[in-house]
Amino acid sequence: MSKNRSIDFWYEFASPYSYLSAMRIEAEAARHQIVVNWKPFLLGPIFRQLGYQDSPFNAQPAKLQYMWRDMKRCCDAQGLAFKRPDPFPGNAVKAARIAILGADQNWGASFTKGVFEAYFGRGDDMACEDVLRTILTAVAADNIDDIWGLAFSDGNKARLRLQTEHASTLNIFGAPTFLRDQELFWGNDRLENALAFSPP
Amino acid sequence: MSKNRSIDFWYEFASPYSYLSAMRIEAEAARHQIVVNWKPFLLGPIFRQLGYQDSPFNAQPAKLQYMWRDMKRCCDAQGLAFKRPDPFPGNAVKAARIAILGADQNWGASFTKGVFEAYFGRGDDMACEDVLRTILTAVAADNIDDIWGLAFSDGNKARLRLQTEHASTLNIFGAPTFLRDQELFWGNDRLENALAFSPP
Repeated sequence: MSKNRSIDFWYEFASPYSYLSAMRIEAEAARHQIVVNWKPFLLGPIFRQLGYQDSPFNAQPAKLQYMWRDMKRCCDAQGLAFKRPDPFPGNAVKAARIAILGADQNWGASFTKGVFEAYFGRGDDMACEDVLRTILTAVAADNIDDIWGLAFSDGNKARLRLQTEHASTLNIFGAPTFLRDQELFWGNDRLENALAFSPP
Repeated sequence: MSKNRSIDFWYEFASPYSYLSAMRIEAEAARHQIVVNWKPFLLGPIFRQLGYQDSPFNAQPAKLQYMWRDMKRCCDAQGLAFKRPDPFPGNAVKAARIAILGADQNWGASFTKGVFEAYFGRGDDMACEDVLRTILTAVAADNIDDIWGLAFSDGNKARLRLQTEHASTLNIFGAPTFLRDQELFWGNDRLENALAFSPP
């Protein structure tokens, strides 16, 4: 029986450490001959289930301050642009609706990386339709209006809700989270462990 | 001007990932010719300042469950014994009072490692005086009663309080935390970065 050669990458566009993973997961997974399944979801509904009204980072000023410092160090080490976004967390709903539509199309990964680079690399507002259309234009060639219509259809909105509920049933509590052979790995620092994992 | 060749290792005995760091920091630091300053403190007062009445892990069942799974994996990878302790978090006050007394004595590091091995490796109750006396006997030879008297003196209790307040003024919000040349690194996963750090 062949080993499962895929990894589910659960990410949220307002999650800083998801940016780090999104920009390196393809190259890392390729080295292990593992296929990446892009799984955008929303952390907001999961945090609200836990009783949080905001990102847990914002409840702890010292941790928030540290996280931005750590992000700057990590982006420097990875050769990525970084600009502290304001507001944080940004509203990721529109970007996630487009990304889930693209997850099984050839422009999905590029769109996801484009949104992360815009939000965490340049501090652009990812809730702004112009920002999203510009990214989409760069990665999806000529059918932007079709994509836009499908992304904001009731069916696709429901798809994102279901995917977020699925994350919750998998006991996902943060992002990025990697799932391999039913084993959860939380955090950008665990990507290598997830890729190297063999079920017992 | 010579570079600062020391690292401050801030740890709390009820912190799972502090166990992982305590068991490897000496060997890792030695490879960088860096001296370890052992800095036990209490997270409880810091969490209470943030409005938490318990470990943040206990407020999030999915995160708590994941953390124990991750700890098992990390302990296996590091060749460490692991037994999920109950209660969690254990009461670390007595152990921390002894450890801060030992921090500048030759038995301090061994005592600290002994407590972590007892609590996270065997599930022993670190609030139990017999458990602590057994560890102390193994590492401090013949003057246990003197150490005990000093550890629980008013002066030493105040020393631990001041060290915890110092952690708070350094913006430490969790454990383990490493401090090098005024740069904070949080979490066992950042030990290598802390050791490799050069101030700009």
